[in-house]
Amino acid sequence: MTRRDLAGSLAAILLVASTALCRYAGFGDVATFVVAAVALAALARLVGSATEQLGARLGSGGAGVVQSALGNLPELFIALFALHAGLVGVVQAALVGSILANSVLVLGIAFIVGGVRHGVQRFSSSRARLISTLTLLAAATMAMPSLAHAFHSPAEPHAHALSLVCAGVLLAVFLLTLPSFLRSAPGEDQEPARWSPVLTTLVLLAGGIGAAFTSDWFVGALLPAIHTLHMSEEFAGLVIVAIAGNAVENVVGVQLAARNRQDFAISVIVNSSLQVALALTPVLVFVSLLFATHLTLVFPTLLALVLVIAAILGAFVVNDGESTWQEGVVLVGFYVVIAASFWWGT
Amino acid sequence: MTRRDLAGSLAAILLVASTALCRYAGFGDVATFVVAAVALAALARLVGSATEQLGARLGSGGAGVVQSALGNLPELFIALFALHAGLVGVVQAALVGSILANSVLVLGIAFIVGGVRHGVQRFSSSRARLISTLTLLAAATMAMPSLAHAFHSPAEPHAHALSLVCAGVLLAVFLLTLPSFLRSAPGEDQEPARWSPVLTTLVLLAGGIGAAFTSDWFVGALLPAIHTLHMSEEFAGLVIVAIAGNAVENVVGVQLAARNRQDFAISVIVNSSLQVALALTPVLVFVSLLFATHLTLVFPTLLALVLVIAAILGAFVVNDGESTWQEGVVLVGFYVVIAASFWWGT
Amino acid sequence: MTRRDLAGSLAAILLVASTALCRYAGFGDVATFVVAAVALAALARLVGSATEQLGARLGSGGAGVVQSALGNLPELFIALFALHAGLVGVVQAALVGSILANSVLVLGIAFIVGGVRHGVQRFSSSRARLISTLTLLAAATMAMPSLAHAFHSPAEPHAHALSLVCAGVLLAVFLLTLPSFLRSAPGEDQEPARWSPVLTTLVLLAGGIGAAFTSDWFVGALLPAIHTLHMSEEFAGLVIVAIAGNAVENVVGVQLAARNRQDFAISVIVNSSLQVALALTPVLVFVSLLFATHLTLVFPTLLALVLVIAAILGAFVVNDGESTWQEGVVLVGFYVVIAASFWWGT
Repeated sequence: MTRRDLAGSLAAILLVASTALCRYAGFGDVATFVVAAVALAALARLVGSATEQLGARLGSGGAGVVQSALGNLPELFIALFALHAGLVGVVQAALVGSILANSVLVLGIAFIVGGVRHGVQRFSSSRARLISTLTLLAAATMAMPSLAHAFHSPAEPHAHALSLVCAGVLLAVFLLTLPSFLRSAPGEDQEPARWSPVLTTLVLLAGGIGAAFTSDWFVGALLPAIHTLHMSEEFAGLVIVAIAGNAVENVVGVQLAARNRQDFAISVIVNSSLQVALALTPVLVFVSLLFATHLTLVFPTLLALVLVIAAILGAFVVNDGESTWQEGVVLVGFYVVIAASFWWGT
Repeated sequence: MTRRDLAGSLAAILLVASTALCRYAGFGDVATFVVAAVALAALARLVGSATEQLGARLGSGGAGVVQSALGNLPELFIALFALHAGLVGVVQAALVGSILANSVLVLGIAFIVGGVRHGVQRFSSSRARLISTLTLLAAATMAMPSLAHAFHSPAEPHAHALSLVCAGVLLAVFLLTLPSFLRSAPGEDQEPARWSPVLTTLVLLAGGIGAAFTSDWFVGALLPAIHTLHMSEEFAGLVIVAIAGNAVENVVGVQLAARNRQDFAISVIVNSSLQVALALTPVLVFVSLLFATHLTLVFPTLLALVLVIAAILGAFVVNDGESTWQEGVVLVGFYVVIAASFWWGT
Repeated sequence: MTRRDLAGSLAAILLVASTALCRYAGFGDVATFVVAAVALAALARLVGSATEQLGARLGSGGAGVVQSALGNLPELFIALFALHAGLVGVVQAALVGSILANSVLVLGIAFIVGGVRHGVQRFSSSRARLISTLTLLAAATMAMPSLAHAFHSPAEPHAHALSLVCAGVLLAVFLLTLPSFLRSAPGEDQEPARWSPVLTTLVLLAGGIGAAFTSDWFVGALLPAIHTLHMSEEFAGLVIVAIAGNAVENVVGVQLAARNRQDFAISVIVNSSLQVALALTPVLVFVSLLFATHLTLVFPTLLALVLVIAAILGAFVVNDGESTWQEGVVLVGFYVVIAASFWWGT
């Protein structure tokens, strides 16, 4: 373990402990909510490092499978606890929000940071373009049940069945494309394993358990904190949960853009959107069948429309093969207006 | 006539005869419906071969005009009989469905077949890109009356007038661009005529008459078959009629992709969408004025939205200049979810 | 002053005088309306020449700022008088109409004129692509409050607040990107100043005063003329006001396309859309706070949808890097159908 690994582990432990303190010492729901969000980001980073180490041992083939299975672990836990608490609206908004946060906000920040440092950045790898096209198609598929519910009245009573069909299709696409796709990305530096197998397993276990507890506290504090802060459930899911759940990919993507590795940065950022659409979303739909409240893909209409529009815009911005900080500024502005639109909710 | 031509003609004759048998021997509407659909595809292939032979005699200039006039003959017959039977919903869905079947389903299958055999396929001809951009613009134009009807209440009572304006614009665009466009495509092998003029005319006549009768039986069995199979009129039009009516272009396009002639494959597939939007649609609108039930371009709202979204996605996938089988898988998945959305209808 | 400058000035003076004559000699509102529209175009051209001269003295840095501040002067005056007269619907339609007129109609005409003269035109400068991507993002941002109002009922009562947020974001983006962006465009010929500073100031003053009076008369005749001609307020704003207000950029853009300078032509045409979205729109929203009737960005739903779709189509057509007259024909056809959809209005 390097000093940096140690610091990361310590930070995660301290943050989980702080969340527990806020939760049980009665520091109030807003404090618990905020500290838990930061703790979840730290845990996501830790689990991310551990899966990387595991990947280094499994070879590049296995690494992708493991990463896609465990990389979204904290996001998965939050969503499960939220579904268990009946907060379907928050989970729906968080799923769309993850895609928006990556394909609009973080892409915009990466463009600004990269553009200010390095001027116009060109990226022409077919990998970035391919991931962005796949994300566009997956996002449009994911939005279909909502559009059918809103604009095709005969399908309305069958919205749940349509959600299951859609989730099945998304999962099938995921499983079919997984082997070819999620191997090691070209340009990704495959470092040798630094951690022993025992340490890796221990960190994974501890990170997983920590993430489970923290997610529970986070979700417990969510509803009261929302009411105290006068924000809507949609806003909480779309902005707060989505950004907390994707913090790691986001920081990594922006760092890569700052180092002028724009191709790789865009792959990482948009790939995160793709995994939400193809893996996290259908898994949650099917797992929620075990719960009292089922998750459907019938999002509020505006959420579905914004998903489609943002996916088209994101694909455009990536497909034109150049990024400038001006594009980044407008992307961030677009995100701000979307977020503001959901400040008021049901 | 080569052995292949003969086999095709025989198959078409047998299938038309089988349809007649089903129809008059009381084999049930579902059987008639299915056999008629296959017979129509065989007839479309026969008429296609005959127009090719006619084109080879007329020179490349005339070939395009003849092909675009006669190539959609079976589709035109089905639509006319359906309109005559008052099945406006089926015809509307079939028009949008033809564009979706080509620009989403068949494009996806071509990407899968081509990609599995040849890996990432690049296509950079401006012809493929131009056709795809034109199709996007024509599809958006075609969707405007529906959007006006759904989202602009003052235009609602004038929807029929707006449909006629829109059909007029589409037809004008078709006539203006016809001479320059539908000549022989580059890359298309212009073979010398194999059939005599008399044979060509006879096949065309026989094929046309066969298509007329089969279309009549197909449409007659459509409504009862739909009810037996519990599908909606929209689904029947969008999926069954659209796929049966476009079978030939579809098979040709996929075969070209398998032979790694991706540029030409995409031109053929997307060009079929373009002809539906620019030629078949406005012609049907104007011809339907002679019937009791008029065809308007006021589609169900979801149909219009899906048309615009699918056209944008199709244009994206073509404009990025590369195809992979993963893109194909997601395209097919997207089509499945669209089809499922229309399983329930009015 | 060259002979051409003199002719332009004289024409503007004569047209303003003719408008006054129509207005006060009782020639009827339709005549006043039409003559005023032409006079406004002539004044826009005059003010444009004067700002160019001013820019030539200020250096390329200042020229952009001045041009963007004064270039939209006549459009700004019309909008202000119309808002003062409570014609919010006309102003909203004119804002969207300016973007449509540039990104669909004028782009289409430029493609036709350029394509007929020079065949397929290629343009690959990153400037044209960048401006078109920025316009797409800005147009989507501008449409968000309308989409929120139409499709997210909880945001409905807060539509005005959301408009102000959106206008603030647009203005912030404008101010942030202004210095880097609106300098002299590459390829633009920076001619030395021909007019003396005194003459420039005088022309600007006279042009501004003339534009103020003519706008007043134009708006005064607008409502009666609309009723006489049986068109809707939306149509008047979307088509008539938008084309009159953008006449100059339009003519310049088409002339450049005819001279086969397609890159520069597209930059000029699409940049005009960008300035409407980023500058004119938010300025009007904030200035309207001083008036009895506030301008919100809650457009009629169809207007917002058409804005998004047209912006996507425009960006597509520019991003594919090639233009043909066939694309131009379909673009113009699309514009005709949009305009026809708004012939009937509230």
